[in-house]
Amino acid sequence: MRYSGLVTTRAKAPEKYELFYWPSIQGRGEFVRLALEEAGQRYTDVARLSKKDGGGIDALLAILNGSSPKAKGKLRPFAPPVLRVGPLLVAQTANILQVIAPRLGLVPDDEASRVAAHQLQLTITDFVQEVHDTHHPVSTSLYYEDQKREAKLNAKGFIATRIPKFLGYFESILEANKRGKRRFVLGASLSYVDMSLFQVIEGLRYAFPKAMKRIEKKIPRVIAVRELVAGRPCIAAYLASPRRIPFNEDGIFRNYPELDG
Amino acid sequence: MRYSGLVTTRAKAPEKYELFYWPSIQGRGEFVRLALEEAGQRYTDVARLSKKDGGGIDALLAILNGSSPKAKGKLRPFAPPVLRVGPLLVAQTANILQVIAPRLGLVPDDEASRVAAHQLQLTITDFVQEVHDTHHPVSTSLYYEDQKREAKLNAKGFIATRIPKFLGYFESILEANKRGKRRFVLGASLSYVDMSLFQVIEGLRYAFPKAMKRIEKKIPRVIAVRELVAGRPCIAAYLASPRRIPFNEDGIFRNYPELDG
Repeated sequence: MRYSGLVTTRAKAPEKYELFYWPSIQGRGEFVRLALEEAGQRYTDVARLSKKDGGGIDALLAILNGSSPKAKGKLRPFAPPVLRVGPLLVAQTANILQVIAPRLGLVPDDEASRVAAHQLQLTITDFVQEVHDTHHPVSTSLYYEDQKREAKLNAKGFIATRIPKFLGYFESILEANKRGKRRFVLGASLSYVDMSLFQVIEGLRYAFPKAMKRIEKKIPRVIAVRELVAGRPCIAAYLASPRRIPFNEDGIFRNYPELDG
Repeated sequence: MRYSGLVTTRAKAPEKYELFYWPSIQGRGEFVRLALEEAGQRYTDVARLSKKDGGGIDALLAILNGSSPKAKGKLRPFAPPVLRVGPLLVAQTANILQVIAPRLGLVPDDEASRVAAHQLQLTITDFVQEVHDTHHPVSTSLYYEDQKREAKLNAKGFIATRIPKFLGYFESILEANKRGKRRFVLGASLSYVDMSLFQVIEGLRYAFPKAMKRIEKKIPRVIAVRELVAGRPCIAAYLASPRRIPFNEDGIFRNYPELDG
């Protein structure tokens, strides 16, 4: 059984990276931004450019509706984030990460590691959807205020069972990695999954600060990964820069105190 | 930029395929079953074997909690379906399909096609979660009967906007494929995404028969894919066999007439 991954080596020639995502939230695009930032990869966050520089929401919409010349002949994405890299126009967060990680050195070369990394990223994808459901359980087309009762019910179960189950799962994965001193999710080497786990912890701390204070005591290895990622020079610089959009109540992780059991 | 995919050729030696999934529902496992069936690949649906043959729910749980010898040294999956193939133990439906499709000849060889196929499959994954939310919007830990009011509200919006948006998206993809007479999702060649789109139509017809009767008029190309897949000899044989578990009210697609607007 032969394996060589999507791309096994870093691209020799510098590729151009263009991210298309909502300009005012971290959202799902943040998982892509963190990988690019950790790798020190230059990229354009297109919708955050001014309209006269070819940016703004219009630039994002033109990719989504296929009217942009950059979308010509490409599969039209269903939703953002979308990343343009080399000849590819890629959508779906986990798919984007899987495509860029080998180019950026953020995943090991062997098939088992790559399949495992993607599997974990898709588990994070599912969890992020559950986070979103805490404030919009009934419908995304209704206001939060119109589903607050159901949101409270949803968030209660989410805090009591889902956060512990999900973070406990990653804690057990880290516990099983007996190799080396530095305990990353895939074992000895840092990967994009560590970046994403960091982002989940940051988001949960923002959305559910009271609950997380209790829960974090039981997941020391996950928190250690969070510290390792936060301390990476490129990530630290990014978090201190204006490129990091603050959390807010339009994103996935929202601080509604009434949901923080 | 070099590319060769997860595996570019069919495995020379026959690999053993073992699926671990809930034995009494189609669920997410069905997307894997359909790909294996179309390829005529022999596989064991482990939890459907009798307990004395090493099957049953216990066999599934042993993979999930890591106590099975088959899980030794492998990444523990968060949830089923899980597929054991060669040295790999793979979870997450779209991840499984991505790993097996090149082995089974169910995706083209080039990077752009594979990335596109996976992107579309992940879009289907998101939609399938929305289908599940129609009957369990508030919480999966509550009975349907205890969230019926919210389920009706959710299903109303789902039928009015989400089904048309999602199926309309695939219709537009098929419309953009001007190549060849046989119109598959990736263009000229059949892929696992066509199998999954077939399954989505079957499920929606079961869950929302009244709504689908109206909606299907606007998506002739999607329905044509459904017909092409249903007519594939291996799929036709599978659907007529006892291996195809009937839809039921424990699965993702549930027929609750009060939700079919």
